[in-house]
Amino acid sequence: MLNEIKGLNEECGIFGVFNSPHANQLTYIGLHALQHRGQEGAGIVTVDDDHHFYQHRDRGLLSEVFKDSNDLHRLEGETAIGHVRYGTSGNNSIANVQPFLFKFNDGDLALAHNGNLTNAQSLKAQLENKGAVFQSNSDSEVLIHLIRQKHSMPFMDALKQSLNEIHGGFAFLILKRDALIAALDPNGIRPLCVGQLSNGAYVVASETCALDAVGATFVRDVQPGELIVIDHDGMHIDHYTTETQLAICSMEYIYFARPDSNIHGVNVHRARKRMGMQLAKEQPADADMVIGVPNSSLSAASGYAEAAHLPYEMGLIKNQYVARTFIEPTQELREQSVRMKLSAVSGVVKDKRIVVIDDSIVRGTTSIQLVKLLRNAGARKVHLRIASPPFRFPCFYGIDVSTRAELMAANHSIQEMQRLINVDSLGFLSVQGLIDSIAVPDAGTAPNRGLTVAYFTGKYPTPLYDYEAGYLKSLKQQRGMFDED
Amino acid sequence: MLNEIKGLNEECGIFGVFNSPHANQLTYIGLHALQHRGQEGAGIVTVDDDHHFYQHRDRGLLSEVFKDSNDLHRLEGETAIGHVRYGTSGNNSIANVQPFLFKFNDGDLALAHNGNLTNAQSLKAQLENKGAVFQSNSDSEVLIHLIRQKHSMPFMDALKQSLNEIHGGFAFLILKRDALIAALDPNGIRPLCVGQLSNGAYVVASETCALDAVGATFVRDVQPGELIVIDHDGMHIDHYTTETQLAICSMEYIYFARPDSNIHGVNVHRARKRMGMQLAKEQPADADMVIGVPNSSLSAASGYAEAAHLPYEMGLIKNQYVARTFIEPTQELREQSVRMKLSAVSGVVKDKRIVVIDDSIVRGTTSIQLVKLLRNAGARKVHLRIASPPFRFPCFYGIDVSTRAELMAANHSIQEMQRLINVDSLGFLSVQGLIDSIAVPDAGTAPNRGLTVAYFTGKYPTPLYDYEAGYLKSLKQQRGMFDED
Amino acid sequence: MLNEIKGLNEECGIFGVFNSPHANQLTYIGLHALQHRGQEGAGIVTVDDDHHFYQHRDRGLLSEVFKDSNDLHRLEGETAIGHVRYGTSGNNSIANVQPFLFKFNDGDLALAHNGNLTNAQSLKAQLENKGAVFQSNSDSEVLIHLIRQKHSMPFMDALKQSLNEIHGGFAFLILKRDALIAALDPNGIRPLCVGQLSNGAYVVASETCALDAVGATFVRDVQPGELIVIDHDGMHIDHYTTETQLAICSMEYIYFARPDSNIHGVNVHRARKRMGMQLAKEQPADADMVIGVPNSSLSAASGYAEAAHLPYEMGLIKNQYVARTFIEPTQELREQSVRMKLSAVSGVVKDKRIVVIDDSIVRGTTSIQLVKLLRNAGARKVHLRIASPPFRFPCFYGIDVSTRAELMAANHSIQEMQRLINVDSLGFLSVQGLIDSIAVPDAGTAPNRGLTVAYFTGKYPTPLYDYEAGYLKSLKQQRGMFDED
Amino acid sequence: MLNEIKGLNEECGIFGVFNSPHANQLTYIGLHALQHRGQEGAGIVTVDDDHHFYQHRDRGLLSEVFKDSNDLHRLEGETAIGHVRYGTSGNNSIANVQPFLFKFNDGDLALAHNGNLTNAQSLKAQLENKGAVFQSNSDSEVLIHLIRQKHSMPFMDALKQSLNEIHGGFAFLILKRDALIAALDPNGIRPLCVGQLSNGAYVVASETCALDAVGATFVRDVQPGELIVIDHDGMHIDHYTTETQLAICSMEYIYFARPDSNIHGVNVHRARKRMGMQLAKEQPADADMVIGVPNSSLSAASGYAEAAHLPYEMGLIKNQYVARTFIEPTQELREQSVRMKLSAVSGVVKDKRIVVIDDSIVRGTTSIQLVKLLRNAGARKVHLRIASPPFRFPCFYGIDVSTRAELMAANHSIQEMQRLINVDSLGFLSVQGLIDSIAVPDAGTAPNRGLTVAYFTGKYPTPLYDYEAGYLKSLKQQRGMFDED
Repeated sequence: MLNEIKGLNEECGIFGVFNSPHANQLTYIGLHALQHRGQEGAGIVTVDDDHHFYQHRDRGLLSEVFKDSNDLHRLEGETAIGHVRYGTSGNNSIANVQPFLFKFNDGDLALAHNGNLTNAQSLKAQLENKGAVFQSNSDSEVLIHLIRQKHSMPFMDALKQSLNEIHGGFAFLILKRDALIAALDPNGIRPLCVGQLSNGAYVVASETCALDAVGATFVRDVQPGELIVIDHDGMHIDHYTTETQLAICSMEYIYFARPDSNIHGVNVHRARKRMGMQLAKEQPADADMVIGVPNSSLSAASGYAEAAHLPYEMGLIKNQYVARTFIEPTQELREQSVRMKLSAVSGVVKDKRIVVIDDSIVRGTTSIQLVKLLRNAGARKVHLRIASPPFRFPCFYGIDVSTRAELMAANHSIQEMQRLINVDSLGFLSVQGLIDSIAVPDAGTAPNRGLTVAYFTGKYPTPLYDYEAGYLKSLKQQRGMFDED
Repeated sequence: MLNEIKGLNEECGIFGVFNSPHANQLTYIGLHALQHRGQEGAGIVTVDDDHHFYQHRDRGLLSEVFKDSNDLHRLEGETAIGHVRYGTSGNNSIANVQPFLFKFNDGDLALAHNGNLTNAQSLKAQLENKGAVFQSNSDSEVLIHLIRQKHSMPFMDALKQSLNEIHGGFAFLILKRDALIAALDPNGIRPLCVGQLSNGAYVVASETCALDAVGATFVRDVQPGELIVIDHDGMHIDHYTTETQLAICSMEYIYFARPDSNIHGVNVHRARKRMGMQLAKEQPADADMVIGVPNSSLSAASGYAEAAHLPYEMGLIKNQYVARTFIEPTQELREQSVRMKLSAVSGVVKDKRIVVIDDSIVRGTTSIQLVKLLRNAGARKVHLRIASPPFRFPCFYGIDVSTRAELMAANHSIQEMQRLINVDSLGFLSVQGLIDSIAVPDAGTAPNRGLTVAYFTGKYPTPLYDYEAGYLKSLKQQRGMFDED
Repeated sequence: MLNEIKGLNEECGIFGVFNSPHANQLTYIGLHALQHRGQEGAGIVTVDDDHHFYQHRDRGLLSEVFKDSNDLHRLEGETAIGHVRYGTSGNNSIANVQPFLFKFNDGDLALAHNGNLTNAQSLKAQLENKGAVFQSNSDSEVLIHLIRQKHSMPFMDALKQSLNEIHGGFAFLILKRDALIAALDPNGIRPLCVGQLSNGAYVVASETCALDAVGATFVRDVQPGELIVIDHDGMHIDHYTTETQLAICSMEYIYFARPDSNIHGVNVHRARKRMGMQLAKEQPADADMVIGVPNSSLSAASGYAEAAHLPYEMGLIKNQYVARTFIEPTQELREQSVRMKLSAVSGVVKDKRIVVIDDSIVRGTTSIQLVKLLRNAGARKVHLRIASPPFRFPCFYGIDVSTRAELMAANHSIQEMQRLINVDSLGFLSVQGLIDSIAVPDAGTAPNRGLTVAYFTGKYPTPLYDYEAGYLKSLKQQRGMFDED
Repeated sequence: MLNEIKGLNEECGIFGVFNSPHANQLTYIGLHALQHRGQEGAGIVTVDDDHHFYQHRDRGLLSEVFKDSNDLHRLEGETAIGHVRYGTSGNNSIANVQPFLFKFNDGDLALAHNGNLTNAQSLKAQLENKGAVFQSNSDSEVLIHLIRQKHSMPFMDALKQSLNEIHGGFAFLILKRDALIAALDPNGIRPLCVGQLSNGAYVVASETCALDAVGATFVRDVQPGELIVIDHDGMHIDHYTTETQLAICSMEYIYFARPDSNIHGVNVHRARKRMGMQLAKEQPADADMVIGVPNSSLSAASGYAEAAHLPYEMGLIKNQYVARTFIEPTQELREQSVRMKLSAVSGVVKDKRIVVIDDSIVRGTTSIQLVKLLRNAGARKVHLRIASPPFRFPCFYGIDVSTRAELMAANHSIQEMQRLINVDSLGFLSVQGLIDSIAVPDAGTAPNRGLTVAYFTGKYPTPLYDYEAGYLKSLKQQRGMFDED
C-alpha cells in the first residue's frame, strides 16, 4: 500500500547493539532493514569506552541523514542505539528526531522509543509543575524526567518505578555508558526482539528482519513487562511488573511489519497468506483472477488466489522510484501524479472480472483511486476484498490515526463504502478469522489469542487515561452502532 | 532482479511529446515511468514557439536531476523530448547524458537515443577524417554528423539516407523546432510506441507504461524501418527502408520492460507468467513451494507455481529503500551489505524444499549470493529454475554486456553452473519454449516469431560490422561447444 | 583576520522582531548581517497570532540552513527571534543550535542566547538534583529551568529572580506567545541594541549593523541589568537588578563586531582607526609602508598609516571564496592550502620595509604564517604592530578561548614572541591606549571607562564562580609574571 | 564592486600544469585563486601516462563543483588544465562549462579558453557548411573544428594555421596526451603567464596570483602571438604569427584582476593606487574624507586619500557572506536585499562631506544605490570620483557587455549622469591619466603604451569582423558625440 495516501503510519523502528566492533555500521544496517517503520527522521547515538557519547540525527530517510561516510564513521564506540521515525507534518521538527541524548553531570543517557503513552499528557503536566522542561512534542521525553525525579534512588530502581508510572504501548531502548537496556509495555503491544552476533554481542531490534540484516541469530522476543539489561556481564532478563498479558498489535501482522519478520513465532508473510486464504472462504467472489495492492497486500492476494483456485496476477504496479511531483496546475496532471506511484496493468485486467485484495481501508482515498485506475484500464468487474476487519477505532499505542473522523469504516456502513469506492462487491475478513489466521502460539489464555484487535472492536486492552474522557464515551456509542455488521 | 549485482543493464528510455501544454511535466512523468531503463542520467529538452530550445540534464536519477520545481518549470514550450540512461562507470561523464542539443545557425536540433550501433566506430573514423569533432563516448552523436555531412540535401532526405548508413539496434527521437521525429532500426530491436493525449497531442515512448503514466491512449507500435514525423499537420508515417524484418529483443520481455507494458501487443507480465508455466512443464521439480527473485521474476514464479500446483510464497524480500553502503572493512560486513538489498525469509523457507525462479543468469554472482541466503535461512533443498535459456552470447544492440568472459553460461556447462551456484538442481527454459511463451502476434514469417534470441543461440539477426572481426570468430567456435545442451 | 586559523571565536549573534509583517524575512536579513558572529549554526523561531510556534534550525551558514524559500516561508507569524552561532567541534551537534524551543502545556517558549555563564555548572548540578533534564551542552538551557522551578510565581517575577541567579556575560532574547523579552547581564558585557522599523515595530539585535540591514532606526543600547519587554502595548524598560556597572567586552571593538556597527555610541571602524593611530604613537617603526591583515585589521592599519605619514598599501589579500581543502599528502600542499586563504602581494612588498598591523595575537599561528608569506614575497623588513595589548587571560563571558595554554602571550615574553614569529620588531598597544581609543562616552565612573580588559590584565569585572577554583589561582600567579611588560 | 549589480563580467580564468605530482590539486588551488574571473562554472581535465583523460565539470563555484574529495582525486595523471567561467543566464547550460573534452580515435584533446572571437559566427557558418556539429554556444569549440578540418596536416601546423584564422582576444590552453599548449592572440588582450614549481614543472595561468597560490616562481608573461608548448623536453616558445602589437585590456588593471597579480610587470594594486592618486590631481573635491567601494576600488581610494591629504575611511561595508534572497513581495524588502550585500557606515559618514571612489560606471545602477545608502546614512555631501574614464563602448574581446544601450556613459553626458546618480559632483579619470598610471614598461612603441582603451575611445585595436556591420557604424557616430568631454 502507498503510505503517502493511506494515512496509516507506524511511529518508529529501534535498534541497539552492545559491545561489538562496527557498532555504528551494524546499527546503520539494522535501521535500514527497519526503514519501512518510519521515513521522516533517523539517528544513531554511540558510546565509546571512555563514556563519550556521539550522535548524528536529522530529518529524512536514513540514506539522506547519513550522506557521507564520515557521518557514520565519526560515531565511535562499540555500543549504539538507533531510531527511524515517522512524523506528522506538525511534529516534523529536528527536535523530535530520536535517539534523544540527555546531558547529565553524572553521565549522559540516550533514548529511543517506539509506541505511544496514554497518560503522557497528565504526566507532563505533573512534571512541569515540578519545573520540568520539555523540548519535543514526543512522549518519549517523559520517561527520562520520571527517572530523574527519583534522583536519590539507584538508577535501576528509578527506572522500574518509572516504567510502572507510564501506560500505553511502548518499546524503549536506553543507552547508558555501561549498559544497553530494553523495556516493553505490560501488554507487549509493540514488537521487540533480541538476537546475538557470531562474536557473542547482543542486538535488540523492533523486528527480526533487522537481526537477519546484521547476521544475528534470533534469541527471543522480549515479553510484556520485561526489562532486559545487556552489559559486560551478558544479558539479564528482569521484570518491572508481573501484571502482564500479551496483546500484540494485530496491525503489525496485517500491514506494518516486513513479510520476512517473525513476531512471537509467527512469520508475517505466512500470517498474511492465511488471512487471504481465510478471506477467500469467508468472502468468495465470482471472478477471473486475483490481484493484490503492492506491496503489503501481495501475500494475502496469493493466499486468496490459492484458496479460491483462481489465477494470481499482477494487475497493479508500484513504481519503485521516488516520485517527486512539482506544482500541478490542472486536475488532469493531478491524476497523472497518482499514476506516477501506482499503475493498473491493462494488458492483464482488460475485460476481466477482478478480485482486488487490500490489507485494510483507512481513509478510503487509496481504494477509490485504485478502483478508478482499474476501471480505466478496462476491468469489467472489480470485487474488493480486505484482508482485515473494518478499521473503526483509533489506535492509542503508536499508530498515527488521530481521529475517528478520518476512518471510513467508522462513518459508513459496508454498503455505503461499496458505493463510495465504486466496487461491484466489498468484503472484509472477520475478527475471528483474523485471530485464527495469525494464531500466536505462546498467547496462553490471553484474550483474542494475544492480539490487540481494538481497531475493529473498540475494546482496548488497557485503560485509555488521557484519551478516556469524553472521547471514549462517543466511541462506546459508536461501537453499538456497528454491532450488527 | 538486482540491477546492481546482475550487471545486465538497459541503456536507455526515451519519451517525446509534440504540441501539448505542460510538455515539460508530461515528459518528466513519462521518464519517471521509464526510470527502470536507466538510472545514471536524465535530461529533458524543450522547444517553444519562438524556436528557442531549453535543456536540463545531469547525472543521477530523475528525482536527483530535477531537484527544484524551477529545474522543470524553466523548460518552456509545448514540445519536448527526454531521456533516462544507464552509464558504465567509465562513460558516466556529464557529456554523455542525453538528450544531446546541437547548435546550428539554421536551427538547433536535439536527439535522444536508445540502442547501440554496430558500425559506429567505422563511421566515427570516417567522419573524423572529414574533420568531425565528437564530444561524447556515445554512438548517438554519429547520426547528427551523418546528417550534417549532407548539408546541401533537404533535411528529411539527409536523415533517411543517414539512417540507412547506420546499423544495429536503435530507436531515435529527434526534436526540431517544428517537428518531433521518431525512427526505429530495420529489425525493430528496441521497443517504441506512439500514444495520443485527450487533447489530441501525440506522445512517443520506449514503453506503453509511459503512455499510461501520462494518460495517453495507445495508438501503435513503431514498426521496423519506420520514420514517424509529428508536426502541426499531425502524424506522418514514413519509411527510410523497406528491407525490414521484426526481431524485437527477447530480453525486453524476459527482464527489462515493466510488467504493465505491452510490446507488439504482448503484455510483459503475462508473457513472463507463461514463461514460468512453460518452465514448470519443461523443468519440473519435487518441492514444497515456489518463490521468485524480486522484482522481475515474480510473474514467472507465480506462473510456475500455478502450473506445478505448488504454493507460491514470498521467500526473498527486496528492501525498497536505497542502500548506501559505506566503506566496509571486513568480509562479515560485506555480506551484510548484500543483505541490505535482499533477504531470505526464514519463517517461510526453513526446512522446506524450494523452487527458486529467476529470470536469467548473467554473471552468476547474484545467483550464488541468493542461494547462500536461502541456505542460511534453513532451506532444505534449493532447485533453481531460470525462465529463459542460458545467456551465452553478448548483445550488440544496447544491453550492457561487453564481453563473453563475464557470462557464466558462456564459460560453464549447466552441470558446472549447478555446482558453482550450489543448488540441488538447475534448469532453464528452452529457446522454443521462450518463443512460444511470448508469441508475438504480428510477427508474420519472421524467424523466431519476430524475436531476437541471439543471446542464447549466437545467431544474430544482423551483420555485426565493427564487432565482427576476430570476436565473432571466437563466438562461432563457442557456439559449437554448447550445441549439445 | 582568518577565523579558521586564529581560534578566537564569538559565540553568537541574536535578532528579534515583534509584530511586523515579514517577521521571518526580517529576521533572516538581520541574522545575515550578524553572520560574522557565528557560522556553525543558525535558526529562526516564529510565533503567529494563534500562538502557534514554528522553527527551523540546522548546522551551517544561514544560506545553508535556509536553502529553499519554503524553509523560510513556512515560518508564519509576525514575531520572531533568530540566532547564529559558533560551535566548537565537540559541541557542534544539532541539539546545540538555537533558538531553543521549549514545549509547555501553558504555552511554548523560545530562547536565543549570546554569552557565557560563569556559574552554569553549579546551577546545572543543583537543577539536576531536582530532576532537571538537559539536552544540550549549552549554558542557555539553564535560565529556562530556573524559571520553571518557580512555577508558582508570575512569569516576570520568576524571570527576574532567575536572572539574578545566573552570572557571567549574557544577552538573552525570549519569545513568548505575546511578548519579546530582552535581558542583558549586570555588566553589559555583550552588546545588544533596540531599533524601530518605519511601521513602528521594534527589533532587537546584537549589533546596529543588523538594524541598518532591516532598515530600522536605532533607538537605544540595552543597558546593564535591563529587562526589556516588547508587547502589543509597546516597549517597556525594566530592570531585574540595579547593581550594575558597564564593562562592555573590549574585544567587540578590537575584533568581533562589524566596522559599521556602533556600540554604546562608538563606531567600531573609527575606534579601530584610533587604535591604529595611537599604536603609531606608542610603537613607531622605520618603514616604507603600512599594511593590514584583512579584513578586521584594515581600519587600524589605515589609522597607523595616517598617523605615521606612511603609505597605506594592500600587501596581503584574503581570498573571498570558500577554500574547501581536500586531503593533502605533502607539506608542500599544506602550505598551499594556507595560500588559498591569504596571499602576500609581492608586487607591493618586494624589497620593502613593512609595518604589518594585526588586531591581536591569540595562538600566534596566523602571525607566523603571514610573516612567512611576506618574507617569501620579498619583504626586506617586517615590523609587526598589534592594535591591542598582549592577550594573556581567557574570556569567561562568551569568547571561545578555553585555556591559557593556547595563548601565546600567556606563555611567552614579547621578546620571545618576536623571535617565534620571526619579525624584525614587535609592538603592542597599551591597555590605556586601548581604553582611550575606544572612549565609551556614557561609561560614567566605571573602571576602564566601561570596558572589560581582563584579557590583558587578568582583572575580571565579576567573580568567576565555577572557573574560580584552582584555575584562577594559577592565573594570579601568572599575572605577576607579566607585570614588568 | 558588486559583480551581481554591475553587470560587467570577465568570461574566464584558465590554469594548466604539466608533469607534476598532484596535478589535480594544484589545478584546483590555481583555479581557486582565479575564482574572481568566473563564478558560474568550473572544471578540470587531467591526462595520465596511459593517455587516459579524466574530467569533472559542472555549474557553480569551484567549491560547489568539487564537493567531495573523490570528485578531485579520481582525476588521475600528472598533467591537467582547468577553467572557471562566467556565464550569462541564457548560456549557463552544462554544455558550455569548460574545459571541453573532445574524443578522437587518434587521441583525445581538451581545451580551455578565455576571451572572445570576433569572427566566430562567420567561421561557424563556414564550418557547418562542411558538416561541423557544435554543441555549445561557446566560441571555444571553433578552434578545434578548424584544426580537425586540417586533418591531414601535422597537428602543430594545423594549430598554427587555425590560430591565424581566428580573430579577437583569446588565451587558449590545449591539453594533448603528451603536451600542454598555450596560445595568445596577436594583441595579447587577455593576460596569461608561465611559472615553474620547485620540482621543475611548468604551470600556466591567467594571472600571477594563481602562480603564487601553487607556490610557483614567475617565469614570464606570454607575449602576443606566442604559441608555447610544454612537453617532456621542457618549454618551447614559438610563434604562430609575428604581426603582433601589445594591447592588453585596461579593464584587467581597472577592475578584473586580483590586486596581488602582476600583469606585464605592473602590480595591479599599485596601478590602481596610482589611478587614485592621478584622479585626485585631475578631479579634486572639497571633502572631509575618502571612501572606496569595496572590494575593487579600495586601492584607488587609498591612493586618492594619500594624494589629497584626506583621511581614508571605511564608509561602505560589503557583507562577505553569500546573500541568498528569497521572494520579496514589497519595495521595502527589496531595498533591504541590497543592504544584505552592501551597507553604509553611518558612524563614519554622518554629517560628513564624502569623496566616494569607484573603479568604473557601467550601467549606473550600483552607483545610484550606493549613493542612496550613503545619503540615508547621513552623508552631507557625496562627491563621486571614478578611477577610469567614462565606459562608452562595448568590449568584443571577452568582457560581458553586449550592448551599448546598457552603458550609462554611452547614453548620457557627465552632467546628466551626476543628476541621475544624485551626487554633488562627478569626475572621471582621463584616458591619458589612466595610461600613465598603468605605465606598462615593455609596451615599446605600441599605441596607448600597450593598452586597449577602446571602451573609452571607441578605437579598437583590431578589425571587428562579425561585429562590424551596422553596429560599428553607429559606434562611430556616437564616438563623435562625446569628443567634447
